[in-house]
Amino acid sequence: MATIKDIANRLGVSVSTVSKGLNGASDISDELRQMVLDTAVEMGYSTKRSKKVENRKICIFVENMNYDTIDEFGYDLVLGFKQNAFRHKWSVDIIPITPAFQEEEKYDTFLLKNGYCGSFLMGLALHDAWMKQFENTTMPTILLDNAIPENPNVCYLGTDNYEGITLAVRHLVNLGHKKIAFLNGSLYSMVSDQRQEAFENAMESVSLPIEKDLMAYGYYVSDSAKYHVPGFLAAGATGIICGNDLIARGVMEECTKRGFKVPEDVSVIGFDDLPIAAAFDPPLTTIRQERNELGRCAYDILNSLIHHIPISKTLLRPKLIERESTARCSRS
Amino acid sequence: MATIKDIANRLGVSVSTVSKGLNGASDISDELRQMVLDTAVEMGYSTKRSKKVENRKICIFVENMNYDTIDEFGYDLVLGFKQNAFRHKWSVDIIPITPAFQEEEKYDTFLLKNGYCGSFLMGLALHDAWMKQFENTTMPTILLDNAIPENPNVCYLGTDNYEGITLAVRHLVNLGHKKIAFLNGSLYSMVSDQRQEAFENAMESVSLPIEKDLMAYGYYVSDSAKYHVPGFLAAGATGIICGNDLIARGVMEECTKRGFKVPEDVSVIGFDDLPIAAAFDPPLTTIRQERNELGRCAYDILNSLIHHIPISKTLLRPKLIERESTARCSRS
Repeated sequence: MATIKDIANRLGVSVSTVSKGLNGASDISDELRQMVLDTAVEMGYSTKRSKKVENRKICIFVENMNYDTIDEFGYDLVLGFKQNAFRHKWSVDIIPITPAFQEEEKYDTFLLKNGYCGSFLMGLALHDAWMKQFENTTMPTILLDNAIPENPNVCYLGTDNYEGITLAVRHLVNLGHKKIAFLNGSLYSMVSDQRQEAFENAMESVSLPIEKDLMAYGYYVSDSAKYHVPGFLAAGATGIICGNDLIARGVMEECTKRGFKVPEDVSVIGFDDLPIAAAFDPPLTTIRQERNELGRCAYDILNSLIHHIPISKTLLRPKLIERESTARCSRS
Repeated sequence: MATIKDIANRLGVSVSTVSKGLNGASDISDELRQMVLDTAVEMGYSTKRSKKVENRKICIFVENMNYDTIDEFGYDLVLGFKQNAFRHKWSVDIIPITPAFQEEEKYDTFLLKNGYCGSFLMGLALHDAWMKQFENTTMPTILLDNAIPENPNVCYLGTDNYEGITLAVRHLVNLGHKKIAFLNGSLYSMVSDQRQEAFENAMESVSLPIEKDLMAYGYYVSDSAKYHVPGFLAAGATGIICGNDLIARGVMEECTKRGFKVPEDVSVIGFDDLPIAAAFDPPLTTIRQERNELGRCAYDILNSLIHHIPISKTLLRPKLIERESTARCSRS
């Protein structure tokens, strides 16, 4: 690993200038400081993993995800992470980010500049600029729902999507459903790929055909129900599994609008178990993601990475929550 | 979850008798005590997850694995687990087990009877009697290299075999090898399945053919080299990837005996990086499993399960350790 002296040699400046740049001293220019930081990152210098409490700073980056109120997906994740981190005397900053921000500032440089020992990232997409940088980052990094091969500083954390979708299919099959539709999330996402594979395998394992007319990608947009539910119903669907709870609400509304009752004519299953899912009409059967536990776990793994335990992947169990949007199939 | 009263009702005995049975009091018969414990387990009673230090007992079960000396695979696993557990004021017992022992005593009953709050199991095979019981155990349970679907009390911990074998294939391909053989571990094992799939995918991804003559199962027995190496060499193998370091030693000896020099004529890669691998002649290139870190991690996850974080799977990164048993391919 590069030392401060290596960085000084590369830049042709003194060790104390590099040290000032890394420590955010006020008596060097912003420009020189940025140069020191970028060079440090390029050369693989990483912040000392100090045990001093005053240096115990970590952060959560959030993109494409709401977390301000208890109804929102990210709320319990942030809460669980903070609860666990505070208990171990870390300070935690929450930093909303955009694609533009990622283009402007390198990931490692940002952490180094701000004294963070590591981070937890929620909601990033495959095409985000930082995703490429994670392949070589030297910073302890936890990614929610995204995996990076071979870098021991990066860990993938998520819910076991495979088991979740299997639970959903089996629940409908046990209720006598045979025409089961799947309105997945976004195309080109690791989570959607896992769920698609799980859906097809679960259908095969109970000898049900995999029908193109009964599968679509809804991009986690409630509105997508409008485009896909008519086709599902025309193809004879009696059960519909959805990529999240909000899509499921859209699907239930669309079914009702077209004269199909939920659950008498069509059973609907969501994913996530947002607090609001129990208040839908009818209350939603769904696959629960344990978000508080995911947040607590994210801290635990980040702490492990900081202590050089190279965890690459941690999955949590999903849980089938049976409510009133699913019922025995009435059609033969 | 069943209460002490439920158990008393089922057995037609008093609550205090059940309590005595669960707590190991001396004034009830062994027979009655066993009956209380078996009924408690059957009804889903689980020990209170107490925070009192005097109850902080966990254990490691070991089967088919040596751990007494630093040379052996299990040594660092046990050490890492204990280091971490002791730091958090748990006592740890190491319990060697056999298939016969598992037939005699139910897993949950054993833990309940001995006051263990959870366990870490190393070296169990798919056909072991306890494997079936893990599907319904209420005890926090970490399995090294085995997975149980859907039970939130059981977690699979291991090295990412997929990434490990991919690193091995890519290393040989980068050295110009095209005829790459794979001497896998045991048939009917989850780890071997993962490695086999990884091997075939890695070969495909570099457009190399998958040849039946270049693949076999060696059952982690060094002697297996004798049976398979002649066939590999006859089929033109210039590189051989092995299921562990001891097989790799057998393979190197067999190559030498048949007039093939390692690494000049044949490159050999092991798996695990036992301490002894660096002392082989030539020193062995191998895929390292971070055993101390796996042990530390096993404690961390067990602690998470005890605190109701339903982790189903945790994988650690393997690492390619380049030594002298691999070299550029000399044949075209």
